[in-house]
Amino acid sequence: MQARRHAAQPSLSARALRAADAPISALMRQALEQPGLISLAAGFVDPTSLPTEAARTAAVSLLSDPEVARVALQYGSTPGNTPLRRQVLERVLRADVADAHTPRESLIDPPTEEQVVLTAGSNQLLALLADALLDPGDCVLCDAPTYFVFTGLIESVGGHCVGVPSDENGMLMPALEAELERQAATGTLGRVKAIYVMSYFDNPRGVSLAAERRAQLVAIAERYSRSHRIYVIEDAAYRELRFSGADEASVRAYDTHGETVVYAGTFSKSFAPGVRVGFGILPKTLAPAVLSLKGNLDFGSPHLSQCLVSRALELGLLEPQAQLLREIYASKAAAMLAALDEHVAPLGGCSYQRPNGGLYVWLNLPEYVDTSSRGRLLLRARELGVLYVPGEYCYPARSERPSSSMRLSFGVQSEERIAEGIAKLAKAIAEAL
Amino acid sequence: MQARRHAAQPSLSARALRAADAPISALMRQALEQPGLISLAAGFVDPTSLPTEAARTAAVSLLSDPEVARVALQYGSTPGNTPLRRQVLERVLRADVADAHTPRESLIDPPTEEQVVLTAGSNQLLALLADALLDPGDCVLCDAPTYFVFTGLIESVGGHCVGVPSDENGMLMPALEAELERQAATGTLGRVKAIYVMSYFDNPRGVSLAAERRAQLVAIAERYSRSHRIYVIEDAAYRELRFSGADEASVRAYDTHGETVVYAGTFSKSFAPGVRVGFGILPKTLAPAVLSLKGNLDFGSPHLSQCLVSRALELGLLEPQAQLLREIYASKAAAMLAALDEHVAPLGGCSYQRPNGGLYVWLNLPEYVDTSSRGRLLLRARELGVLYVPGEYCYPARSERPSSSMRLSFGVQSEERIAEGIAKLAKAIAEAL
Repeated sequence: MQARRHAAQPSLSARALRAADAPISALMRQALEQPGLISLAAGFVDPTSLPTEAARTAAVSLLSDPEVARVALQYGSTPGNTPLRRQVLERVLRADVADAHTPRESLIDPPTEEQVVLTAGSNQLLALLADALLDPGDCVLCDAPTYFVFTGLIESVGGHCVGVPSDENGMLMPALEAELERQAATGTLGRVKAIYVMSYFDNPRGVSLAAERRAQLVAIAERYSRSHRIYVIEDAAYRELRFSGADEASVRAYDTHGETVVYAGTFSKSFAPGVRVGFGILPKTLAPAVLSLKGNLDFGSPHLSQCLVSRALELGLLEPQAQLLREIYASKAAAMLAALDEHVAPLGGCSYQRPNGGLYVWLNLPEYVDTSSRGRLLLRARELGVLYVPGEYCYPARSERPSSSMRLSFGVQSEERIAEGIAKLAKAIAEAL
Repeated sequence: MQARRHAAQPSLSARALRAADAPISALMRQALEQPGLISLAAGFVDPTSLPTEAARTAAVSLLSDPEVARVALQYGSTPGNTPLRRQVLERVLRADVADAHTPRESLIDPPTEEQVVLTAGSNQLLALLADALLDPGDCVLCDAPTYFVFTGLIESVGGHCVGVPSDENGMLMPALEAELERQAATGTLGRVKAIYVMSYFDNPRGVSLAAERRAQLVAIAERYSRSHRIYVIEDAAYRELRFSGADEASVRAYDTHGETVVYAGTFSKSFAPGVRVGFGILPKTLAPAVLSLKGNLDFGSPHLSQCLVSRALELGLLEPQAQLLREIYASKAAAMLAALDEHVAPLGGCSYQRPNGGLYVWLNLPEYVDTSSRGRLLLRARELGVLYVPGEYCYPARSERPSSSMRLSFGVQSEERIAEGIAKLAKAIAEAL
């Protein structure tokens, strides 16, 4: 027996073999290994603004009444805590109605709490959707560039993402139609299971989908839902992190009959990542499949976290926190943009957009500059003490993958460190130009 | 567009189509719909013993220092909070060494915290293992009967469970060898990915695997790991719920080189289900695959819950809770056994074992009595106001599935309601005999 022990290796599933580490993980590990490095790479939230006082107040309130505490400490249900599901739904519907542009028809068939599922961050919802909708060989259409964790998820179930060109107002609807037409012409429309958009201040570019495109997106998805429903997965993770302008109605609000759009939201950005409460509002026809998969996985996410968020909402602790975040990220974004204006703009050939929310600025360099790990710039920036996410990582694997841009996050670092980081980065860029 | 909207239905993945509701779910829903029903079906923990005071103390301690609170409220890592991973490992190793029968060799290559992953309950670990190891058509050997959620999980990834006969001391090792020989003879040994055992007070029977079988189990798994490693998945969910006798070394402790056994544990039973913190101790060769899959799914379970459990451990709040649980479940088990002795034993032809821990008693009725949903007994019991889990549900789908036993849980109900429930059940059984 002993002699054999080194011979036998694991026989991993096809899924496990696909789920290899993303290149971003190696990058993040490097960041941790280099002390003093200013990471403008991690998409984490600002640590100083985390709601320690609000969390304590909510926890004490929740756990001081033994009756209430017992409920929070017991198992929940697979879809999650019902009061929080109601609160979540009400918040989204209220926000959508507040936008004067919301189509009136959106009131025809409003979703109910039965269509709401609470997940371990919105990421788990995206993972469940990938599992529910995709077989190997299937695909999802998405912005190019898009959220690299999402493309990784799709690839881990054997699917692939097809990038659709996007401008400073989000996905280009004529390009989306052209792609769907192309799929129809090649007989592969049956493999297109969803269209994924980050509708507010997207990761990686900080771009929001323009209102008129939201309506068009739903209409196009419906029009091409011939043999089967092509869902729109609306990832609204950054919606509450708006620091300029008024909130806009979601893509979901344009889905008159509620059969096309899956809305994914989270309290990770607007409250605290550590509670890890995300949610989905699902079309009625899709909810049972997602709940069955979630039932198999974990019978429901941690009930205590859900009860804590519900209590924080009841106590009105989220609005002041959201206000605080808006102020903090407005200042941090301004600090990053001011530093880019001062150090990078004068170099010439570089461009960036001014976001109204979220955590990111997307920086385009001249095409001949390689921001990827194959180029000099990433290494030189690290030598100088600053880290960014190469833009290439944000493009789907099978699409064209331009490699002269980068994602810069103003989430984690202080204003001083942001300014210092951008100055270092500008030095590295200047050498590359 | 509008005309088409009813035509387009979801096109679900093969995995979603397999993940249909388990029959147990329908049973649980029925229980909720009938007020006053005494459910001896649900495997939930005793609600009165939930550690409201300990949870409050740990939460206040954790959230009162802003520095510490910020860490808890920020994202964690995919494997989970490092201090808690160390605590978990130390607890398991200490418990295993405390058993004088532990083989000395188990100290050769002790696991490190790098091999520990924190999950959303131990169920998520089981789901990740199913994902990591099984392709459709693969199989896992398990006790017959076994934990029905596990068999459902295996089926949801397209695998199947093969039942191995088991007696009052757990899985029969000659039967396990015979099954592996059969698989080898039919050329299907390559599809056997793991052997699953609940080593302490199993669900559904309250049976523990005898010490000498633990050593044999590891040896047999090693011996048949010819083309690939056949893992032993040791589910120790109920280990801390022992109310009589001394703790025994785990199967893991007999895995001298740490390459065969995956140990799954949880704080759901020993502390609170609502915190939903489970854990796995993984062989080094398997950890990367499980972590990659978990990274895709949720980048790590809620950090706040993990920090809360870690703090509760630091403050010594778990031992008194474990002591309380031992007393409560000892009384409840005694109440159930006394009621069975009084009402069921005199009926003749019925048998049950006296568990030393866990939440369950397994009741065997004469073979001609059908306890399944096809028989009269389940319906009659419900009419009389009591619910049980039909034994048939606990057998793998492709195995022989005896239908004259039932799982009775003493976890949730009070001693009075347990006695009342068993009296009602005895009435229904008497009518069936």
